Amino acid sequence: ELHTLLDDMHSADVACVLEALPLNDRLLVWDLVKAERDGEILLEVSDAVRESLIKAMDSDELLAAAETLDTDEIADLAPDLPKDVIQDLLESLDTQKRARLQSALSYPEDTVGGLMDYDIVTIRADVTLEVALRYLRRLGELPEQTDKLFVVDRNGALQGVMPLQRLLLRQPDEKVADVMAEEVVTFHAEDDASDAANAFERYDLVSAPVINADRHLIGRLTVNAVVDHIRQESDSDMLSIAGLREEEDIFASVWKSVQNRWAWLAINLVTAFVASRVIGEFEGTIEKLVALAALMPIIAGIGGNSGNQTLTMIVRALALGQIHPDNAKKLFRKEIGVAFINGLIWGSVVGIFAYLLYGKPALGVVMMGALTLNLLLAAFMGVAIPAIMHKFGRDPAVGSSVLLTAVTDSGGFFIFLGLAALFMPYLT
Amino acid sequence: ELHTLLDDMHSADVACVLEALPLNDRLLVWDLVKAERDGEILLEVSDAVRESLIKAMDSDELLAAAETLDTDEIADLAPDLPKDVIQDLLESLDTQKRARLQSALSYPEDTVGGLMDYDIVTIRADVTLEVALRYLRRLGELPEQTDKLFVVDRNGALQGVMPLQRLLLRQPDEKVADVMAEEVVTFHAEDDASDAANAFERYDLVSAPVINADRHLIGRLTVNAVVDHIRQESDSDMLSIAGLREEEDIFASVWKSVQNRWAWLAINLVTAFVASRVIGEFEGTIEKLVALAALMPIIAGIGGNSGNQTLTMIVRALALGQIHPDNAKKLFRKEIGVAFINGLIWGSVVGIFAYLLYGKPALGVVMMGALTLNLLLAAFMGVAIPAIMHKFGRDPAVGSSVLLTAVTDSGGFFIFLGLAALFMPYLT
Ligand SMILES: [Mg+2]
Ligand SMILES: [Mg+2]
Ligand SMILES: [Mg+2]
Ligand SMILES: [Mg+2]
Ligand SMILES: [Mg+2]
Ligand SMILES: [Mg+2]
Ligand SMILES: [Mg+2]
Ligand SMILES: [Mg+2]
Ligand SMILES: [Mg+2]
Ligand SMILES: [Mg+2]
Ligand SMILES: [Mg+2]
Ligand SMILES: [Mg+2]
Ligand SMILES: [Mg+2]
Repeated sequence: ELHTLLDDMHSADVACVLEALPLNDRLLVWDLVKAERDGEILLEVSDAVRESLIKAMDSDELLAAAETLDTDEIADLAPDLPKDVIQDLLESLDTQKRARLQSALSYPEDTVGGLMDYDIVTIRADVTLEVALRYLRRLGELPEQTDKLFVVDRNGALQGVMPLQRLLLRQPDEKVADVMAEEVVTFHAEDDASDAANAFERYDLVSAPVINADRHLIGRLTVNAVVDHIRQESDSDMLSIAGLREEEDIFASVWKSVQNRWAWLAINLVTAFVASRVIGEFEGTIEKLVALAALMPIIAGIGGNSGNQTLTMIVRALALGQIHPDNAKKLFRKEIGVAFINGLIWGSVVGIFAYLLYGKPALGVVMMGALTLNLLLAAFMGVAIPAIMHKFGRDPAVGSSVLLTAVTDSGGFFIFLGLAALFMPYLT
Repeated sequence: ELHTLLDDMHSADVACVLEALPLNDRLLVWDLVKAERDGEILLEVSDAVRESLIKAMDSDELLAAAETLDTDEIADLAPDLPKDVIQDLLESLDTQKRARLQSALSYPEDTVGGLMDYDIVTIRADVTLEVALRYLRRLGELPEQTDKLFVVDRNGALQGVMPLQRLLLRQPDEKVADVMAEEVVTFHAEDDASDAANAFERYDLVSAPVINADRHLIGRLTVNAVVDHIRQESDSDMLSIAGLREEEDIFASVWKSVQNRWAWLAINLVTAFVASRVIGEFEGTIEKLVALAALMPIIAGIGGNSGNQTLTMIVRALALGQIHPDNAKKLFRKEIGVAFINGLIWGSVVGIFAYLLYGKPALGVVMMGALTLNLLLAAFMGVAIPAIMHKFGRDPAVGSSVLLTAVTDSGGFFIFLGLAALFMPYLT
C-alpha cells in the first residue's frame, strides 16, 4: 500500500507530496515515512512545510533524523531545529565534524559558505594517475556531482583540479601535476551566492572548490546547490513583489496568513492615506467640476504602470552590472525620452477621451498635460529610486515599486488637480 | 591592448561586456573580437544584443560564425539569422548534420528538444569496461558536462547509462551490462522545458538522455542548458509582470522602447477608462459629498494589493502542482477567511481614519463595509482568475494581475460609491 509506495519514491518526490497535502493528511503521510529518511526529506521540503513537520516531531526523532545527514545539511536544517537538539547534536559529533558544523552554521544562507558541502576528494600532485585511480577504487565511491578531484599540497593548499574526464582518458603513467588543470574558478565562503551562481552559469561549471585566504581547500560548491539557490531567489523575488514576507504554506491557518501579509498592506495603506490627503486638499476644485474625480485615477494609474516599466529595466540592468557612471546619464535621457513620447501619445488618447465625454476642450488639454508630466515624474523616479538604493548598498528590487507607485499616485493626483485648479476658468 | 585582453576572456565574459556597452562602442568592440569566436559569443549574449550584433554583420560573416557551432547551437541562433544565411548553412552541412539541424529547428524554444544537444557518446552493453575505456581514449575527448555515457543496443535504443564514476571505480573486466544503471531519468523532445528543469532540480542531474517514442536516443539534456532556461524563465516572468513584452536592450533607441512598452500601457488605459466610467456614474453622489473622491482610491488600492497577494500564492501553488480538485475548496475558503479578517482589521483602520478626518461616523462605517467587500471580491478573483486560466491551459502568471487589478479598481469604486449612495441620508 501507501507504505511501500512511499519507500519506492525519491525523497524529493515524497517532499512534493507532503507539500501538496493539508496539514492533517501531511502528518499522516509523514508518519508512514521510514525514520531513516526523515532527514533527507526535511531537506527537500519548503521552509514553511518543514516547520510544520518539525513541530510534529519530538527531540529524539529530530536528533535521529539529523544524524543521518552531512554536516552542511544539518546546518541547512539548523534554523528550524530546537536549540536543545542542536546542542545534543554538537555533543554527539566527533571533533572534525563538530568544527565543520560550527563553521557551516556561521555562514549566512545566501553566501557560498551557506551553499557549499564538505564532500571533497583530494589527491596529490606528485603521484601518477594510476596511483590516484587505485586510491579512488579504495574509497569505493565518489560524492554525487563529482566531475573533478581537487589537487592539494601537503598543507592542504589548492594547486589545481583533476577533471574525471582526464583521469579516464589520459595515460595511467602520467603524473597528476602534468595532467591537472591549474586555471581554476574558485570561490570564497564569504562570496555572495548569487555571484557564484552567475559564475556557474557563465562557465558551465558542475562543481568548484571553495578556498580560504591561504588558498586552503575548505569545501566545494556543486551545481545542484546552485540550482536550488537560483530557484529560491527567483521564488522569493516573486513573493516580495506581492508583499508576501516569506514563503507561505498554502495550507497555513488563516491567522498565520494574515500575519504574513499584514506588513505590506499596512505600508500600502499609509501611501493610500497620503494620496487621499492630496486629493482632500483639492476638494474645492473637485466640487466645481466633479468630472475631475472620475478622470484622476487614469493619470495616477498610467503613471504607475509606465514608471514600473522603467523601474524593472533599471533594476534588471543593475543586477546584470550593466550600469556604470558613464552610461547612467545616457540611460536617464533615454527613459525621459520614452516618457515624453508616451506622454504625447497616451496624453492625446486620454485628452480626446475626456473631451468626447465632457465636451470641454480645455479638460482634454489638462489631461494631456497632466499625463505627460506624471509620466516624466514616473520615469525620473523609476531611474532615481533603484539608483539611490543601489548606491546605498540596498537591494533595489525590494520596496522600490511601492515607493514608486506612492509617488506616481500622489504626484499624479497633485499634478492633475493642480493643473485643473489653475485652468478652472476655462473648465467651467 | 584591448585586442589581447578580449582574446584572453571567456566568451561569456565578452558577451557581458558587449551587453553593457552602448551601441556604437559595442560594435567597435565586436569588430575587435576574433571572427572564429563570433559564433560562441553570439550564443551567450541576450536576444536584444544579439539582434544588434547580427545587424552589423554581412551574410558571409554570419555564415562563417555559424559554421563554428554545433547544430543545436545553430538552431538557437536561427530565429535571428537572415533566411538566406540559413539556406546557405543547410546546403553547406553534411547529410547527418543537415537532418539534425532541421529537426532542431522544429522544436519550440521552451521544449526539451529546444534545449538539448547532440553531444552523445554511446557504448554497447556487451563489452567490458576496459574495452569501453579504450574506445573513449581513442575518441580523445568527451563533451563538456559528460557525467555518464549512454548504453544503446544495435538499433540505437537506450538500455541504460554508464556513470563515469562507475567506469573509473569498477573493475576493468566487468561487463558494461552488469555495471550500468538501468533506471534512468529520460526525457522526450516534446516535453516542456520547465518540467525537465524541475526534474533536474529534484534528482540533481548533470545530464540526461532524450529519447523518442521507440526509446531511441536522439540527444541529451545538460544541466547548463537547464540553468540557462531557468534564468531566462524567471527573467521573462519579471519582465512580463511589468508589461515589458520582451527583453529590451537598455541602450535601445527611444522609439524601440516605446514600441516594446506600448501594448501594456494600452491595456491598462482601457481598464482605467472603465474604472473612470464607473466613477462617472456616481458623479451625482460625489457632488453631494466630495470627501468620497478623496477616500475612494484607498478602497481600490488596498483591494488590489490584497488580491495580488492571493493571486501570487495561487499562481505559485499551481506552478508547483499543489492544487487539486479536492483541496481547491479548502484553499478557497482559506483565502476568503483571510480577506474577511483583513477586511475587519484594515476596515476599522480606514473607517477610523475617515471618521477622524470628516467627523461623520456613518462615513467610517461605509468605508469599513466597502473595504471588506472589496477584499472579499479581491480574494475571490485572486483564486478564480488563475484557476480558470489554468483550466483552459493558459499560463496563469501572464495577464492575471492586470485583470485582477481592473476588477478590484472598478469593483472597489462601485462598491464604495454605491454604498455611499445608499447611505447618503446618514452622510450629509
Ligand atoms: Mg516518519
Ligand atoms: Mg538535495
Ligand atoms: Mg548549507
Ligand atoms: Mg551533500
Ligand atoms: Mg539577491
Ligand atoms: Mg551557461
Ligand atoms: Mg569580429
Ligand atoms: Mg554555453
Ligand atoms: Mg531566444
Ligand atoms: Mg536549442
Ligand atoms: Mg554544445
Ligand atoms: Mg513557463
Ligand atoms: Mg536538487
